[in-house]
Amino acid sequence: MEAEDRWRGQTTTSGPHAGKSWWAWGRVSELRGLLQELATSFGLSSANLDQLCPPTVLEIGEQLPKPRIQLASLPDKVRSFCKDDDFERLFHSRGRDVAALLDVCSQRRIAVVPFGGGSSVVGGVEPVSADDGFSGCVALDLAKMDQVLEFDEMSQCVRVQAGMYGPALEDSLRQRGLTLRYYPQSFEFSTVGGWIATKGGGHFATGPTHIDDLVQSLRVVSPNGTTETRRVPASGAGPSELRLYAGSEGTLGVITESWLKVRPRPQTRASATVVFQAKGDADAAFELGAHCVRDMAQTGLQPANLRLVAGPEVVRSAGLSQQERELLAAAAVLLIGFEGSIYVRTRLQAVAEKRGGLLVSQKLAEEVSQKQDNSGERSGIAGSWGKGFMRGGYLMSAACLFPSVLVNTLETACTWASFLPLHRSVLNAARTAMKRECGVQGQVTCRFTHVYPDGPAPYYTFVVIGLAATPGEDSRVRMWQNIKRDVMQAIMDHGGTSTHHHAVGQLHLPQYRAERGALFGSTLAAMKAAHDSAGIMNPRVLGPSIEAPPSKL
Amino acid sequence: MEAEDRWRGQTTTSGPHAGKSWWAWGRVSELRGLLQELATSFGLSSANLDQLCPPTVLEIGEQLPKPRIQLASLPDKVRSFCKDDDFERLFHSRGRDVAALLDVCSQRRIAVVPFGGGSSVVGGVEPVSADDGFSGCVALDLAKMDQVLEFDEMSQCVRVQAGMYGPALEDSLRQRGLTLRYYPQSFEFSTVGGWIATKGGGHFATGPTHIDDLVQSLRVVSPNGTTETRRVPASGAGPSELRLYAGSEGTLGVITESWLKVRPRPQTRASATVVFQAKGDADAAFELGAHCVRDMAQTGLQPANLRLVAGPEVVRSAGLSQQERELLAAAAVLLIGFEGSIYVRTRLQAVAEKRGGLLVSQKLAEEVSQKQDNSGERSGIAGSWGKGFMRGGYLMSAACLFPSVLVNTLETACTWASFLPLHRSVLNAARTAMKRECGVQGQVTCRFTHVYPDGPAPYYTFVVIGLAATPGEDSRVRMWQNIKRDVMQAIMDHGGTSTHHHAVGQLHLPQYRAERGALFGSTLAAMKAAHDSAGIMNPRVLGPSIEAPPSKL
Repeated sequence: MEAEDRWRGQTTTSGPHAGKSWWAWGRVSELRGLLQELATSFGLSSANLDQLCPPTVLEIGEQLPKPRIQLASLPDKVRSFCKDDDFERLFHSRGRDVAALLDVCSQRRIAVVPFGGGSSVVGGVEPVSADDGFSGCVALDLAKMDQVLEFDEMSQCVRVQAGMYGPALEDSLRQRGLTLRYYPQSFEFSTVGGWIATKGGGHFATGPTHIDDLVQSLRVVSPNGTTETRRVPASGAGPSELRLYAGSEGTLGVITESWLKVRPRPQTRASATVVFQAKGDADAAFELGAHCVRDMAQTGLQPANLRLVAGPEVVRSAGLSQQERELLAAAAVLLIGFEGSIYVRTRLQAVAEKRGGLLVSQKLAEEVSQKQDNSGERSGIAGSWGKGFMRGGYLMSAACLFPSVLVNTLETACTWASFLPLHRSVLNAARTAMKRECGVQGQVTCRFTHVYPDGPAPYYTFVVIGLAATPGEDSRVRMWQNIKRDVMQAIMDHGGTSTHHHAVGQLHLPQYRAERGALFGSTLAAMKAAHDSAGIMNPRVLGPSIEAPPSKL
Repeated sequence: MEAEDRWRGQTTTSGPHAGKSWWAWGRVSELRGLLQELATSFGLSSANLDQLCPPTVLEIGEQLPKPRIQLASLPDKVRSFCKDDDFERLFHSRGRDVAALLDVCSQRRIAVVPFGGGSSVVGGVEPVSADDGFSGCVALDLAKMDQVLEFDEMSQCVRVQAGMYGPALEDSLRQRGLTLRYYPQSFEFSTVGGWIATKGGGHFATGPTHIDDLVQSLRVVSPNGTTETRRVPASGAGPSELRLYAGSEGTLGVITESWLKVRPRPQTRASATVVFQAKGDADAAFELGAHCVRDMAQTGLQPANLRLVAGPEVVRSAGLSQQERELLAAAAVLLIGFEGSIYVRTRLQAVAEKRGGLLVSQKLAEEVSQKQDNSGERSGIAGSWGKGFMRGGYLMSAACLFPSVLVNTLETACTWASFLPLHRSVLNAARTAMKRECGVQGQVTCRFTHVYPDGPAPYYTFVVIGLAATPGEDSRVRMWQNIKRDVMQAIMDHGGTSTHHHAVGQLHLPQYRAERGALFGSTLAAMKAAHDSAGIMNPRVLGPSIEAPPSKL
């Protein structure tokens, strides 16, 4: 078969996933184009790169177990959106009427794996195996629930279906001069529902960069019922229902839509007092002030304080002059407090100099394009690295195709106090393990994907080039597992989290079990039972980490 | 009895609550001093104000039901910190070895009400009544667990016991040039544990002002076990255990300590790239960069991006010149992105002018005092109002003493889109109800305690002066209940939350039931059972709103 056909044979030409690889990151065309580039940077021969092409769907199909669920046996309105052809089954191994589907699956004990973009790197969307005690497994692909349903421009919120992908969402927002400003590395191939279910982190290293900080309300369909949280900017009423679903990884129910907080596309201690008047009408004056405060709160600027008070309330305060009382009697008062530096850039450059940093380039104020994503850096060193960053998923997939190369990444977060010991221990564990497992010295590098006042989120990349002979897939997987096990142990030993933004899935279950307490394990079990009596929702994820309630119960 | 003695008779001279009123906000001395001021501002006669003095503890004591728990019957180590004298019982009607106490109470079916500062305005710490099916009720007062246990200055975190009050915590932080920057109106009379259990909001109207945004980790003792969450700045591992306890109002367990995130006492699109070098040692260069990023992240400034990358990783990027590659090979690279306005103050003043605001006073950059709280505004109109704000609790307590006066406040949060309809409906409902219930026209005023990009948190104050004759306590309470009921209905009808920062307690249970979904009701019940099999934890709060699991279960 022609190389051309073999590459084309890894995808399908129809449906929402046309052109995507059944096994690799993103589009087959991009993947193939990357091989030459990698061969060069790895210093490998680039002859016959097409020999690295993996099996086609047709070739794999022959080894696929037959579907355990007969489509013909399903009720019409469920069958109408179900598929079981080889590409779809392969693609989803790694809709609408959601409630009806969950009913059928609960009754027949069919496992349900909610599926967004399938970009999970932790086994978050893999099916159950035949011996897991289920009568089958459905990948509930939300790709067709991909619409913006409603705009609330005054409140700067947008109602989005869970299956919508990042680029489509930003395209729709850009037309109104808005942005969600959420850019995970998987931006192009992950969905709104997947972001929330995995409690994802965007690539902005500071500020509100976690998706759960950008969610205003959620609609969740579970086997035991459907819930829609109230649309309020904040609430002191009980534990947060929103935060319960963020990170639940499809084990409680299916997130079908969400109201997301968006913002217009692209701080010294001081204070000011502003008075609003409306021809002696205190109510109207307050409404003028309310419009003003809304404008201020929506500029994206963050004054330390912004308090609007009805004039008559202020008049009751002691220490006011007669003149002030008369001014305020039918007015509204806005108290504004300021904090922080006027020149963020200048202040940070001074810190950089103090710490011995060398300023090699800088870009001053520029207009933000209304046509492209405002997702990050542009030219020079920053631009070069930035472009590579957004292709990281492709890099991983393409690198696996070189039998003599081993590439892996993992990430965590820890306090500043524990960072240095953790970091040094990770470097040491990685180098020792790579040498031991692979017989050659590998390279381990680190970056901070996020930084917080109380700690960083270090992200580690491991590259081993020139594996002895060609070890074969099984032993390469064993090498990877042993290296990962040693490094994760170093992270857990030094107080890091099992994952900062990759989620738990199946890959991090052992570390997650050790990370969260036994009491929270039984709490997760209780929440699971309240949502999913039959235990069909993504049963291999988080679930196996759920513990039986303490003996006291 | 002398007026002096009657006032003194409302408190006790010993123990952690010496000087505090058994029934009113804060200290008796402050309360008495406020009466003259109020009589003036209400335009009432100030003759014989001491006649307003409520019954002493001694007088009330005669009507108190006898304790249902005999201290002598308790195990020594529990009895050692238990009290049942009249003042303590009255004070707590509105320690250490926590686990041991919860064991005893679970076995004997004694209700437990965790008690911080007792500043709840929603019935959050009231005891169960004799007919609630419990064999008694313990107020678990954490006032003696009031220490800072540990500082992690590098990570800017502090480990605090749950019973510590706001001023003591800030005094301790100020000595190290730090602040939590959390100032609820109850600051002086509320505790760390209470803040977290009620998911409190501080008085800064914008930015990270909710306590759950300032908590890094928690220690919780429940009847079914103890849990301590991991100390990490962020995590993608499962639903947030922290957020589960924030807002649980003592129904799941007792928060005994917390790691809190503190900060040093007191944006235009641009970017800069900084390189760190260490004599060809890439690891050392990265550590230099890490120190620098930590300094930057801890300045309190918020650049849009702050990403540190190991040079060797950047070198793998395409499009770099040979010179750049050589520079980066053994270096670390810091990519900094900036957004927002350079002059917050100037920009906001322009918005104010555009909206017709009149600038009546302003204060430019000033040094922040290292001796006092940096809790807000100072002189002029702002200062006058600000001082009154922090005395709001006293105002409410003192106002109730005037038989011809009715004062009430309530708060909510809603989207900007729903604010005007909600606000107008609340004003109308309040005026109608005050006139109907009290026979005279009352005054209703509003302020925004918090503002968010997607909506405000309006706070309403109702004042009725000159009630027909003196209605007597019972009918005054009925007036208040009827006014509150009508106004809360208007809020719920227009999509507001039942409470933005006062918590649910008992007062807001009817509205909270309507606000949260049935599925979350059964989820709360499941979480409760996982923590508190015997159902003894603060059983009248949130609990009664918990629904039986859906029939499907």
